[in-house]
Amino acid sequence: MITVERSGARVDIILNAPERLNAQTEETWIELARIGRDLDPRTRVVVLRAEGPSFSAGMDKRVFTGEANPNLREMLEGTNEEMQDRIATFQEAFRWWHECDAITIAQVQGHAIGAGFQLALACDQRILADDAKFAMKEISLGLVPDLTGTYSLMQLVGYSRALDICSTGRSVEAAEAVQIGMALKAVPVADLAAAVDSYVESLMAMQEPTLRAVKRLHNQVRTRDKQFVAERREQTALLRGMLGG
Amino acid sequence: MITVERSGARVDIILNAPERLNAQTEETWIELARIGRDLDPRTRVVVLRAEGPSFSAGMDKRVFTGEANPNLREMLEGTNEEMQDRIATFQEAFRWWHECDAITIAQVQGHAIGAGFQLALACDQRILADDAKFAMKEISLGLVPDLTGTYSLMQLVGYSRALDICSTGRSVEAAEAVQIGMALKAVPVADLAAAVDSYVESLMAMQEPTLRAVKRLHNQVRTRDKQFVAERREQTALLRGMLGG
Amino acid sequence: MITVERSGARVDIILNAPERLNAQTEETWIELARIGRDLDPRTRVVVLRAEGPSFSAGMDKRVFTGEANPNLREMLEGTNEEMQDRIATFQEAFRWWHECDAITIAQVQGHAIGAGFQLALACDQRILADDAKFAMKEISLGLVPDLTGTYSLMQLVGYSRALDICSTGRSVEAAEAVQIGMALKAVPVADLAAAVDSYVESLMAMQEPTLRAVKRLHNQVRTRDKQFVAERREQTALLRGMLGG
Repeated sequence: MITVERSGARVDIILNAPERLNAQTEETWIELARIGRDLDPRTRVVVLRAEGPSFSAGMDKRVFTGEANPNLREMLEGTNEEMQDRIATFQEAFRWWHECDAITIAQVQGHAIGAGFQLALACDQRILADDAKFAMKEISLGLVPDLTGTYSLMQLVGYSRALDICSTGRSVEAAEAVQIGMALKAVPVADLAAAVDSYVESLMAMQEPTLRAVKRLHNQVRTRDKQFVAERREQTALLRGMLGG
Repeated sequence: MITVERSGARVDIILNAPERLNAQTEETWIELARIGRDLDPRTRVVVLRAEGPSFSAGMDKRVFTGEANPNLREMLEGTNEEMQDRIATFQEAFRWWHECDAITIAQVQGHAIGAGFQLALACDQRILADDAKFAMKEISLGLVPDLTGTYSLMQLVGYSRALDICSTGRSVEAAEAVQIGMALKAVPVADLAAAVDSYVESLMAMQEPTLRAVKRLHNQVRTRDKQFVAERREQTALLRGMLGG
Repeated sequence: MITVERSGARVDIILNAPERLNAQTEETWIELARIGRDLDPRTRVVVLRAEGPSFSAGMDKRVFTGEANPNLREMLEGTNEEMQDRIATFQEAFRWWHECDAITIAQVQGHAIGAGFQLALACDQRILADDAKFAMKEISLGLVPDLTGTYSLMQLVGYSRALDICSTGRSVEAAEAVQIGMALKAVPVADLAAAVDSYVESLMAMQEPTLRAVKRLHNQVRTRDKQFVAERREQTALLRGMLGG
């Protein structure tokens, strides 16, 4: 259900089950985690996109009927610790996008619901079609977002707006997403692929070690002093590489 | 001067001294702290609202003339440590709104000045009338905001905008408050109560343990890794509760 | 190349090489660091401004041809640790603006590129002419921003927007800078000096110890609990000073 296309230092990861609105199962997460683990270290940009009218409708409904994994009833047979470890393996599909040295971009059209919303949040950047709609629907199922979405959302839009979105499950449309800092830009649906391609090209124009160093400098929360040390360390390595010293 | 109304899992806390523009004294803070300590653990949503044209004009002027507590001159008879401990007791009125498991909402019309601004900031959310005006006037009295307002304001609007607001004491009107992320929305004065009621209803539609879990997941600053662990822990408890495992 | 003007508690630091678009060299940084170290402790407001059509075009091109310092080839003769220590001395020019008790304001017209962008970010506030344009061009030279800019930019605009700006080197114009929280306001070029003067006057109207205390309360990242303690400590000192207790 996931296709991977490589083109030089660009990797496209394509959710490829449009007939199911790219709904996610444990199989999706195992595959995404594997793609992350095996990512060619020369990759500079990863584009996450989806076939069909919608990015991802969230968890596959068959999960709730026991026809697909994760099987929630079976999970409950384990201890709390075992359940948490199981969820940790699901989170692996969502956590490498920020942590790798490549810049990761979600290309989002239509609905990005629940696990779909969290997957878009796992990327460094989001570029939207005008028809994009996000909703953290977990709460209406009696669940919390547990696929790494709460941290990313708070980082992007702050405590109060993130709590609002996760506690009401309301829809966030493309224009609002851009206004509150949840996405870089929104373009007409017909222009979405070109807008992402153009963004990727602007990144690919940069030297590889520099692009990696910039990503590393941004990908964690640091104190001011620690960030200054990180800047010096990265610059020193770049200067040495560039000038051959 | 404070009225408490309970209606199922909703609690309204009503500043009820419109003749004094809901100006605050030590008595206000003792009462608010007590309400927080005694909050029924089944409460899911707290609405903080105010009678009259304005939310709260800040510290009662009688405090500055020695006619009401806190008596600043009497405080100065203590050691620095005793003064700081006294201020810590005042802060209790402002600190439980985020920390409790209920979602707390300030319903703000007219002026929210100084301690009034800080009280609105103590809540998780702010829903405004179009005529709402915030100002951190402490600085023009030679004081800093010490009722927990600086942390909340920086969380919402960032370092530079918070410093601007606290160092100039300037007015922030409703439209700007929404634009910079200090409030969820602003509506015509006549529609304010209905807008808050409607927001509360959207929260009340959610299951109680889930609403609490979502609040807990948002109410503190965590590192990314710690937040992932918190997500797993909350979800495990919810699944167990929901499916009876 | 840098002029300092004092007028009571206001200090203006003026980049004064318009013929070179206020491009920066090691000499600039040595001078700025010295000005910071020697800042009169009675200073309440620092205005950083620039002669000519542009704030600062970034690193002086002569640095890259070896005609001015820092001499990158010479730096490479040292160990990595020596190079990082050298960069740390450059960073001194950029790090005192937040850390001092004075409120620091960058007055920006025209281009603020690379090191110029980072210098504007080093200040607490930015007030812009409508023609202001920022760009973190380091990446197109194969370098990262290492003059303390990444931390400040992430604080102001968040992870994703900061990574976007630093990884693409794209231009951020005045209106966007205000919208995303990178600057307080933008005014017509002809009104820029007056807008800054008026802002400074609004700060100067405040009592000196209070203005310092407000700056201190905002100038570092704290946990919520630690911030509450900081508020109490600052307020106690102010009350004692004000009421003579």
